[in-house]
Amino acid sequence: MKSSQAYKVVGRPEARLDGEDKVTGKAVYTVDVELSGLTHGKILRSPYAHARIKRIDGRKAEALPGVYAVITRDDQRGLGMFGAAYKDQTIVAIDKVRYVGDPVAAVAAVDEATAEEALNLIDVEYDELPAVTSIEEALAPDAPLVHDSSFSGGEMMGQHYEAPKEFAGSNLCYRFSYAKGNIEAGFKKADHIFEDTFRFPRVQHFSMEPHATVAHVDGNHITLWAGTQEPFTLREHLSEIFHLPLNKIRIIVPYLGGAYGGKLAVKTEPLAVALSWKAKRPVRLAHSIEESFKTVTRHPARVQIKTGVTKDGKLVARQCLIYMETGAYADAGPRVTQKAGYRCFGPYRIPHVKTDAYTVYTNTVPAGAYRGFGTLQVTWAYESQMDIIAEKLAMDPLEFRLKNLLKKGELYTPGDTPVDCDLKEGLLRAAKEIGWNKKDNKPNRGKGLACCMKDGGGTYKVASAAVKMNSDGSIILLTGTVEIGQGARTALSQIVAEELAVPLNRITVAELDTHVTPYDVNTNASSSTVVMGLSVQRAAQDLKRQLLRHGARVLKAIPDRLRLKHGRIEGNKGQGISFESLMHKIFSSKAGEIVGRGAYQDVKSKKAALGSPTTFWEISWGGAEVEVDRDTGEITLIKYVSLADVGQAIHPVLCEGQDEGGVMNALGHSLLEEMVYRDGQLLNPNLVDYRVPTFSDLPMGFATILVENHNGPGPFGAKGTGEGGLLPVAPAIGNALYKATGVRLYQLPLTPERVWQALQAKNRS
Amino acid sequence: MKSSQAYKVVGRPEARLDGEDKVTGKAVYTVDVELSGLTHGKILRSPYAHARIKRIDGRKAEALPGVYAVITRDDQRGLGMFGAAYKDQTIVAIDKVRYVGDPVAAVAAVDEATAEEALNLIDVEYDELPAVTSIEEALAPDAPLVHDSSFSGGEMMGQHYEAPKEFAGSNLCYRFSYAKGNIEAGFKKADHIFEDTFRFPRVQHFSMEPHATVAHVDGNHITLWAGTQEPFTLREHLSEIFHLPLNKIRIIVPYLGGAYGGKLAVKTEPLAVALSWKAKRPVRLAHSIEESFKTVTRHPARVQIKTGVTKDGKLVARQCLIYMETGAYADAGPRVTQKAGYRCFGPYRIPHVKTDAYTVYTNTVPAGAYRGFGTLQVTWAYESQMDIIAEKLAMDPLEFRLKNLLKKGELYTPGDTPVDCDLKEGLLRAAKEIGWNKKDNKPNRGKGLACCMKDGGGTYKVASAAVKMNSDGSIILLTGTVEIGQGARTALSQIVAEELAVPLNRITVAELDTHVTPYDVNTNASSSTVVMGLSVQRAAQDLKRQLLRHGARVLKAIPDRLRLKHGRIEGNKGQGISFESLMHKIFSSKAGEIVGRGAYQDVKSKKAALGSPTTFWEISWGGAEVEVDRDTGEITLIKYVSLADVGQAIHPVLCEGQDEGGVMNALGHSLLEEMVYRDGQLLNPNLVDYRVPTFSDLPMGFATILVENHNGPGPFGAKGTGEGGLLPVAPAIGNALYKATGVRLYQLPLTPERVWQALQAKNRS
Repeated sequence: MKSSQAYKVVGRPEARLDGEDKVTGKAVYTVDVELSGLTHGKILRSPYAHARIKRIDGRKAEALPGVYAVITRDDQRGLGMFGAAYKDQTIVAIDKVRYVGDPVAAVAAVDEATAEEALNLIDVEYDELPAVTSIEEALAPDAPLVHDSSFSGGEMMGQHYEAPKEFAGSNLCYRFSYAKGNIEAGFKKADHIFEDTFRFPRVQHFSMEPHATVAHVDGNHITLWAGTQEPFTLREHLSEIFHLPLNKIRIIVPYLGGAYGGKLAVKTEPLAVALSWKAKRPVRLAHSIEESFKTVTRHPARVQIKTGVTKDGKLVARQCLIYMETGAYADAGPRVTQKAGYRCFGPYRIPHVKTDAYTVYTNTVPAGAYRGFGTLQVTWAYESQMDIIAEKLAMDPLEFRLKNLLKKGELYTPGDTPVDCDLKEGLLRAAKEIGWNKKDNKPNRGKGLACCMKDGGGTYKVASAAVKMNSDGSIILLTGTVEIGQGARTALSQIVAEELAVPLNRITVAELDTHVTPYDVNTNASSSTVVMGLSVQRAAQDLKRQLLRHGARVLKAIPDRLRLKHGRIEGNKGQGISFESLMHKIFSSKAGEIVGRGAYQDVKSKKAALGSPTTFWEISWGGAEVEVDRDTGEITLIKYVSLADVGQAIHPVLCEGQDEGGVMNALGHSLLEEMVYRDGQLLNPNLVDYRVPTFSDLPMGFATILVENHNGPGPFGAKGTGEGGLLPVAPAIGNALYKATGVRLYQLPLTPERVWQALQAKNRS
Repeated sequence: MKSSQAYKVVGRPEARLDGEDKVTGKAVYTVDVELSGLTHGKILRSPYAHARIKRIDGRKAEALPGVYAVITRDDQRGLGMFGAAYKDQTIVAIDKVRYVGDPVAAVAAVDEATAEEALNLIDVEYDELPAVTSIEEALAPDAPLVHDSSFSGGEMMGQHYEAPKEFAGSNLCYRFSYAKGNIEAGFKKADHIFEDTFRFPRVQHFSMEPHATVAHVDGNHITLWAGTQEPFTLREHLSEIFHLPLNKIRIIVPYLGGAYGGKLAVKTEPLAVALSWKAKRPVRLAHSIEESFKTVTRHPARVQIKTGVTKDGKLVARQCLIYMETGAYADAGPRVTQKAGYRCFGPYRIPHVKTDAYTVYTNTVPAGAYRGFGTLQVTWAYESQMDIIAEKLAMDPLEFRLKNLLKKGELYTPGDTPVDCDLKEGLLRAAKEIGWNKKDNKPNRGKGLACCMKDGGGTYKVASAAVKMNSDGSIILLTGTVEIGQGARTALSQIVAEELAVPLNRITVAELDTHVTPYDVNTNASSSTVVMGLSVQRAAQDLKRQLLRHGARVLKAIPDRLRLKHGRIEGNKGQGISFESLMHKIFSSKAGEIVGRGAYQDVKSKKAALGSPTTFWEISWGGAEVEVDRDTGEITLIKYVSLADVGQAIHPVLCEGQDEGGVMNALGHSLLEEMVYRDGQLLNPNLVDYRVPTFSDLPMGFATILVENHNGPGPFGAKGTGEGGLLPVAPAIGNALYKATGVRLYQLPLTPERVWQALQAKNRS
């Protein structure tokens, strides 16, 4: 691979293609879509965590002037059930409501106020039922059941998910188990065994833009403008729900104001469709912040981790028992559980491992995909425990980690992609940057490290792209990657610009529209730069080959002797032709276009634990220095250092932005964020009571370092990034807190109240 | 070629894909496009046929509340000039106005009423100039000049057009000359020489939907919703006018309510763009009927035709001198002139020919493309003269024609495509259907025949298409052909359905959008079934090959032994797989798509008189029987028979509709329509004073016969149709009028007044 210096566009901080649109407020998001006769949808939501619906009557609401449609359970008749992994959801509740916020009915009306008014006119009679609102309650013997009947499984990203039959009559709905070596023998070899239980809170994605859909059903055609990360997959879901072929469903994706996994799969889009179908008018269904809180969250988790280690500090065995609380509907829960279960061994060489991870239904908001996808819950556990073990062995946590880190080329599990990064190099760099070996000895201060790894790219991926040259040599890029704010359009255009030797402004990215945009399974799992990046690069290369072939004919040269430079094809004898002139020659007029196509498809392998080897390893390191106020329990982040292995930064500033954003995002669940329930009611679904990090929470010192070894599988050696930054934050801070105070917390977030109580308890003991 | 019987979808009158949208009123036309903040444009037009603009001041209009932009000549600064063939137009008049209706200024305002009001506030001071409003005035010595400076030529459909230098200082702007044989020698061989001059009136396209554009300029991006027949070519024009690359211009084409050539090239779209640019808001610029009358018309013409014939009835020489009145701006005039000049020899074997055709500027509405494109003007002349000659030779007009018709395989001119149709067979059929040999001898009745030919397909064509199979086997067709009402989406989808062995409802045609739809030069010249049809067929075949290749792998068969049937791939041993299952196998999941691509490109040839051999010959025959009221001069069409060589009707009912519509359209210029000018003012720009044919004008007997010899160059042997029906109508009626009354008219339309006056003159003589 070339070093960045050799590139003209790649590796350079070009102005974002969506920058002007966004800073001037012109960017169109789903709520900005205007249609003739657009009506407004509102959802009536359950006030109970668990109740039977005795009666529901929408007639009074229907009679309100300005109301065009009321959807109740009667309208579900004939529609398919749905859900990311399991088909356990309906557009509105049928027999029971299962969480506070569960959609019970919906209204489309001439304006939002009328729709709100109509909601109040819907009569619902409930019989309240006992609820389970925590993992423990859900697992208790004779616990009330969230679902008392079974439902069919489904396909998610190329894998089929099905609830095991033996879970009938329980609140469990999925299990992922994996073992390598012999766990009993492993523990026998251990000199010390550590058993700890860590807890991860329920947090919400808190995108700047809540969920929004504009649906227009016209006869048997559905057109949707949707803030979704996976329009093509959403199309599959709608196809099954509404029994329509894919060619009758068109999904257009405007800009998204953040997503973080919360806009994957299927949320209230089918309800918007049903409203439009019944209203015979287009319907905008836009959530409030509170409604997004009641739509999807990250999985709260209980992670029991048992690790055996020799006295000289070698990890020999690890067993994990993980419970992921998926709320009232599974959403992506089974897959998140699988990933959590698979990733709990960390970036370490452990010969004997065993994991059992369970998905648990409770009467709470469904939990689904969230940036990090099951990894945060287990990195919090394993990287905290690493420090616990190191202390017990009287080893330096850095040294202990270095002793056990996987080497580049080593296998995480048999059948998976070998580790593609020098973990040691990164960890040493993180340690250096945080001043690990400096003994500054300020009171109430401490430093912590963490090193994390996830299988990246969200296999199993299917993607494609097209790059089209117009008759004037300008270029249109067709890509299914959703511009969420991550800067994908810019980075992907840079890849095209580099391949075709044109400046970035020669490229326009076409609107994402499932009717015309080449297929792409979704935008998630830090995958776009690699998966779509390769598709786009291949499409550009396909176009380039065609240009060279034509150029060779026109210039009477052989293609291999020609190269692309400054929007021209140039030969080695001084001859050359601009793309525009070449196009005019090819088509004998100012007409025509040339289209290059490229695709990417992951490999399926029965040898791989998850069915496909990972696309790449997303690896990150974090170093934190904290200062703790012993009077209040407040943690101040003196410094945070984040390192991410990006292979090759296509756009270094965007990569840094992703990494910084990831750290800030993780400061939420590490220090601040937690959805608080009491009696099944969510108490803090708003920015006042639910604190997300703001600029005032920035670490006083903050460094983001991109590790670039130009060895990723993506274009120009790129790897994916975007999630890695989050992974080490909580354990690095937790470990620093311990160093500063001697207090070890097992539950996030590390709020002043928790820290203070732990300090009090420590003082008492 | 197979007979129609062998096809499952092709050749069958399937329900139109756009039928439900249109009969329920849901179809979206350009004026239906809604955008947030949409403003309304209005054009201030010249009240003079020719005047110098002394002063123009838009400040009062700009100050009117609700006005967002006023465009005057000051805003033209920096913009390119434009026009279909020549760059002789500006968005608004600069120094002079050149016809009544010439845009002088434009306004964008909050609503149409405010925009109208603002127009009244624009101060314009004119100096009236002498005008030329007919070919004769324009050609007179020392005639006032419509344009007193020269301008640059341009490219139109792969040909470059340039005004000859020697025309400077005249109102001529283009000449097409062609000769074959030796015209002087030819006339020497003739026993009789006939010289006649025919005139063709100015008529308007009268689409149900007048011209409309919605423009949205956002920074340096233009998005246009436009009722255009050539979005990709319009994009080229806008690119040159606004100095923007093609990737910054996106044109979306909603349904069109008719076009007939009137929505080709560039009309007031650039003005809409300029308004949106200045208003910083989207602008709808929708013409009234009257404004469309003041935008584009068909070329009035004077055709002098001199034909030499031997006494035994063989044509030996023809010389034509043609003047096409193109109005104040050339629009497509040079190309229309070229086609008129080239087509004036008719479907006959004439060894010695010479033609000179001129384009003439006048101070009238610009004339551009119109269904038939220069052919109507010359068929009126040559097929009328054929009857004049036959009478002089005392031959039956049918017999005279049969003696001279070109044979299948014969050359019209060297280098052009040989005649691809049995002209004699068609003419005999037309004669039979009209009862040519029946001597019914009713008073004041007469029958007439005509046989016409035009080079079809509008070469030079560049087209492409894509056919995409979704993971469930459903299909999306991407085609740049504009759905004007001709049923193109249905016919093109039938081609796909036939190739892929699926029912028509498995196919959806994606919205036409220049950013994503494969390139297509335009929708005109009866070309789509052949040119786009082949592109679409090739794309479907490309997809089919990919399916068969994958199918062979999955079914462990060789591709040649497999066939597509009922949405499946089937082998010869009973094995088979549905497209849906195959897709799931290919992508190992419910994901992905397969895209087939196809293209078409005409050949350039220096041997061909027009630079490219014609794609196919569009041939039609007509037979008319009329009854004339000698008291009023009114012609009643007792019967009309139309025959069109369609090769293979993809959709017979749509073909018949095209042909019937063509005849009805031609009844307009034959009997009713004529734009009347007095002192440079158009007197009848509305449906009250300008009579278009209605159902009451239907011939009492009306037959449309499709000639299907399955030998066209298009898919399944199809040829293009849509214009042929118009060509014979006027001469067949004129010839029938002569038979009925002995009156020969040389000028259209054959209004009662003209017929009555001719009858009076005949009685006096």
